[in-house]
Amino acid sequence: MTFPAPLTGVVPPVCTPLTPDREVDVPSLTRLIDHLMAGGVHGLFVLGSTSEVAYLTDAQRRLVVETAAGHVAGRLPVLAGAIDMTTPRVLDHARSARAAGADAIVVTAPFYTRTHPSEIARHFRLAAGAGLPVFAYDLPASVHTKLSPELVLELAADGVLAGLKDSSGDLGSFRAVVTGARSHPGLSGFTALTGSEVVVDSALALGAHGAVPGLANVDPAGYVRLYDLCVAGDRERARAEQERLCELFAMVGVGDPARMGGSSSALGAFKAALFLRGVIDCPATAEPQVPLSQEEIERVGKYLAAAGLL
Amino acid sequence: MTFPAPLTGVVPPVCTPLTPDREVDVPSLTRLIDHLMAGGVHGLFVLGSTSEVAYLTDAQRRLVVETAAGHVAGRLPVLAGAIDMTTPRVLDHARSARAAGADAIVVTAPFYTRTHPSEIARHFRLAAGAGLPVFAYDLPASVHTKLSPELVLELAADGVLAGLKDSSGDLGSFRAVVTGARSHPGLSGFTALTGSEVVVDSALALGAHGAVPGLANVDPAGYVRLYDLCVAGDRERARAEQERLCELFAMVGVGDPARMGGSSSALGAFKAALFLRGVIDCPATAEPQVPLSQEEIERVGKYLAAAGLL
Amino acid sequence: MTFPAPLTGVVPPVCTPLTPDREVDVPSLTRLIDHLMAGGVHGLFVLGSTSEVAYLTDAQRRLVVETAAGHVAGRLPVLAGAIDMTTPRVLDHARSARAAGADAIVVTAPFYTRTHPSEIARHFRLAAGAGLPVFAYDLPASVHTKLSPELVLELAADGVLAGLKDSSGDLGSFRAVVTGARSHPGLSGFTALTGSEVVVDSALALGAHGAVPGLANVDPAGYVRLYDLCVAGDRERARAEQERLCELFAMVGVGDPARMGGSSSALGAFKAALFLRGVIDCPATAEPQVPLSQEEIERVGKYLAAAGLL
Amino acid sequence: MTFPAPLTGVVPPVCTPLTPDREVDVPSLTRLIDHLMAGGVHGLFVLGSTSEVAYLTDAQRRLVVETAAGHVAGRLPVLAGAIDMTTPRVLDHARSARAAGADAIVVTAPFYTRTHPSEIARHFRLAAGAGLPVFAYDLPASVHTKLSPELVLELAADGVLAGLKDSSGDLGSFRAVVTGARSHPGLSGFTALTGSEVVVDSALALGAHGAVPGLANVDPAGYVRLYDLCVAGDRERARAEQERLCELFAMVGVGDPARMGGSSSALGAFKAALFLRGVIDCPATAEPQVPLSQEEIERVGKYLAAAGLL
Repeated sequence: MTFPAPLTGVVPPVCTPLTPDREVDVPSLTRLIDHLMAGGVHGLFVLGSTSEVAYLTDAQRRLVVETAAGHVAGRLPVLAGAIDMTTPRVLDHARSARAAGADAIVVTAPFYTRTHPSEIARHFRLAAGAGLPVFAYDLPASVHTKLSPELVLELAADGVLAGLKDSSGDLGSFRAVVTGARSHPGLSGFTALTGSEVVVDSALALGAHGAVPGLANVDPAGYVRLYDLCVAGDRERARAEQERLCELFAMVGVGDPARMGGSSSALGAFKAALFLRGVIDCPATAEPQVPLSQEEIERVGKYLAAAGLL
Repeated sequence: MTFPAPLTGVVPPVCTPLTPDREVDVPSLTRLIDHLMAGGVHGLFVLGSTSEVAYLTDAQRRLVVETAAGHVAGRLPVLAGAIDMTTPRVLDHARSARAAGADAIVVTAPFYTRTHPSEIARHFRLAAGAGLPVFAYDLPASVHTKLSPELVLELAADGVLAGLKDSSGDLGSFRAVVTGARSHPGLSGFTALTGSEVVVDSALALGAHGAVPGLANVDPAGYVRLYDLCVAGDRERARAEQERLCELFAMVGVGDPARMGGSSSALGAFKAALFLRGVIDCPATAEPQVPLSQEEIERVGKYLAAAGLL
Repeated sequence: MTFPAPLTGVVPPVCTPLTPDREVDVPSLTRLIDHLMAGGVHGLFVLGSTSEVAYLTDAQRRLVVETAAGHVAGRLPVLAGAIDMTTPRVLDHARSARAAGADAIVVTAPFYTRTHPSEIARHFRLAAGAGLPVFAYDLPASVHTKLSPELVLELAADGVLAGLKDSSGDLGSFRAVVTGARSHPGLSGFTALTGSEVVVDSALALGAHGAVPGLANVDPAGYVRLYDLCVAGDRERARAEQERLCELFAMVGVGDPARMGGSSSALGAFKAALFLRGVIDCPATAEPQVPLSQEEIERVGKYLAAAGLL
Repeated sequence: MTFPAPLTGVVPPVCTPLTPDREVDVPSLTRLIDHLMAGGVHGLFVLGSTSEVAYLTDAQRRLVVETAAGHVAGRLPVLAGAIDMTTPRVLDHARSARAAGADAIVVTAPFYTRTHPSEIARHFRLAAGAGLPVFAYDLPASVHTKLSPELVLELAADGVLAGLKDSSGDLGSFRAVVTGARSHPGLSGFTALTGSEVVVDSALALGAHGAVPGLANVDPAGYVRLYDLCVAGDRERARAEQERLCELFAMVGVGDPARMGGSSSALGAFKAALFLRGVIDCPATAEPQVPLSQEEIERVGKYLAAAGLL
């Protein structure tokens, strides 16, 4: 497909359903994609953090992209995370994603290593050599580096970056990219997506093209409705929809913090919700994440019920 | 080979020589191993941070282990890093390392993801399932988690860990592991290695079994001499040798901090030194690291000359 | 005065003008207050981070509050930072601020010490004993702790907190406080203020009561205009005004990062702008901050000229 | 007194005994000082982190220095922390400490503010203007900046710093200061003290002049014995004594981490031990620290009993 420039709308980071023995559950994955498409989403982002990309082996990653790209068959753009520590490893993932049918790749700054800003720039420039559009993934909680608006705009102006997925939580910095790109004559096709679940209305109001909310796995129609209201300029109803989604998002806190990390709790809650909604067959998360207890899964159900999703 | 328990002595984290086009330079790697063995080292650690493991593709990683294990042919124990974000990916590396001939694997806490202490413990327990002795690699600068002495000792007592490679820089915490293991009847075979270049004498004096200093690539004989002096109880000469090595270690600062990160500077300096000493054919480091300038490489030469190594 | 509940509008964190020998410049401070009031601001926050509170001695802090409270004489509410490491020291500042005429105090979580969440809660509960309304100041960049929405709402519900000044940069977390307070019957008087310069429109759109932007020292009328447009629901003109202020805010980057920190650059730029606009007599910042060069001050002037403020 | 250059031996950071209503307990403080002097210590450091300096008001700080300096009456050097966010506030504390009889001041890098390395240097240079010898206090856990060996040595060479109290936990960096000062002709009087409790033998072996261990409040004679053994070159008995003190130091972990921070647990344990040994009248710590429970205090007693200190 010709990749949209800019890409607009709701682009969920697709959960990766697993079997009880932690293999990719392909039938569940295709059902999840059908569920998302039925909700009206505008693209798919596989192999993101919400997809548990950090836990998937190379073979599993490839299977996920093949399954998604094959099932979507060009009806939506499919972005694939090429997430690894440094450039040579990212390029391997990028080649694999391309061969498996991805339309674009999403790349973070290097991690594990400590890199200089000039090395981060070089990393993205080399990643662009893989032959697919590159989205920068700004995720300081994972990679411990914040991408500056100046760097993102410089790489965009040089044709290195097709877009930004901002999961930094820093809306002011994101705005600097959005307004900077808008005022640059060569960047009319540059895409700025927020990774937030809870300030999508704010991000769209200041000029973002779309959103990549993990919670859109659970309620894709809700985020599409929110997007449509924002585009229509109906700010009050958009705010109400966003606040409803914020309440639903509180499910990420069901896991007992004495027993598991916040990340395991959030990913476990999304998968439990998809399981309870009948979309996927098994709510398992990948090792070594601690699973939600039966009681915690039931609390996820209460959030769904309160949102009218059960 | 039967893996020594405990493993004692100098176990360099072996640099990975690269060709100008960033492929593994196998002839240089075998020469480097010969150089280390001629220096008297007691084991080899391939695919550690100093080996640029974060920058090597899976194929390159496998080639490094095959080359090292094949060339050593059982004359020394070969430890291989199985460095990746989470358990399933680490297990893939572990299987590859085992098939390629490694005698033990070295594993960090998960990174990129944010994990709970109970998940870190589970990670190591599962890693032990790969069928090779597991060394925990405590490297908070890279993985942003510190392994507590309590966790290390618990995992050791349960037979999960064969040893610890401590690169935390926290000698007090390392001491807690060393003395804790010593006083535990079941842990007489547990190995505690320091990853420091500059307080090896201190670590050995408090009971460490050995050291994994990156600088031992450049001056293996110096670290072996230091180890022998410490074992012989000649503390004054040990201190003098350690201080000589500290002066040599200052080479890691040759890179201009305005232009590159500290990690690129240090790895560049080690490789430049090996190149200048005639051990490897090319001082290139992996992408996206900024290379040392010609003038900076010449400054590395001055450190070598001052140490009588040229 | 009866303290407004909630407090709404623009409440600038007032710069502290200094003489060339780093004493509080009282005439400049009163002129600055007149300048802010002429701009239409709705309250004053003295002794915040923008006020260089961390650099002012106890005597200087007292003089600032006395000057501001005396000059304002009840025409506007005056909030005073009571910023120190722990509770007993904060209480000393709170008593001093109260005696000097402040209407409310602004208190961060403890810093320098490492405190448990239960100790942070206790800290705010004890601070409320000083007899003035307490605003929590969420400033993780300085105190290295983030106040959770749950804690803020719990303390608000218990009558401990009168409001929140959020400088965390995390608009999603701020929204959780805003919507949580709105849905709580007892919290209709609770005040939620954003400390951002660059997403004031976003914060007001989701329900914030006001803003505390450091840049409002330089352009108070601009922020008041922005606030009025937001209240009037004219979102497009609000966005345009916000974007104009974002461009002006870029002045914080005039200082050379090789020579000074970002904080010195930003505070230096605000003071240089006030100096160039004729509001204060001297642009000096407190020790040990590196001052802007003459050339950097001239670049501040260009930002002012572009904004029509010269 | 003429301040020793270098200062050698054991210099405890003196706990600040408090009454049940959190006033400085002067009789307990003088008894604690007698207890330390009876143990043979070589100097006193009041108003350090172990002294709960962050929790003491200015009046309490002054009372502590007056009490200590008055009671010691020149028999030992008295160092006083001048701990605050920035230079002007530190200078106020320094003047107060000087007037109260301190012989030297101990100063950290600025905190709360984010400062550039050049501003940190300027901070120490200005602090030296207070007219007392200045010790740099390297405490990154509190101030979130590490003092580089290069900066410490530069300031020492310029006559700004009389010494270093290293609580960074990074023995390699400390060694760089120790050996750097030793090889510099003008720095024969420069003092390098470790703040560690658990690697004092290691620090002395590599050339430190002394130690500032918080646990020396509880067992001053033990640390003096350790120091004497190190000076005598009896490394094996020194190591045994150090390991005994490491076991005693484990008392810092008695506090339940679900209920309090590690700092509250450690300070609570030291004070509980002094209370149980009959040195001070009340084990209270300052607000807002959570106090140890009765059961936790009893566990401190077991550590003392095991060490033969009850």
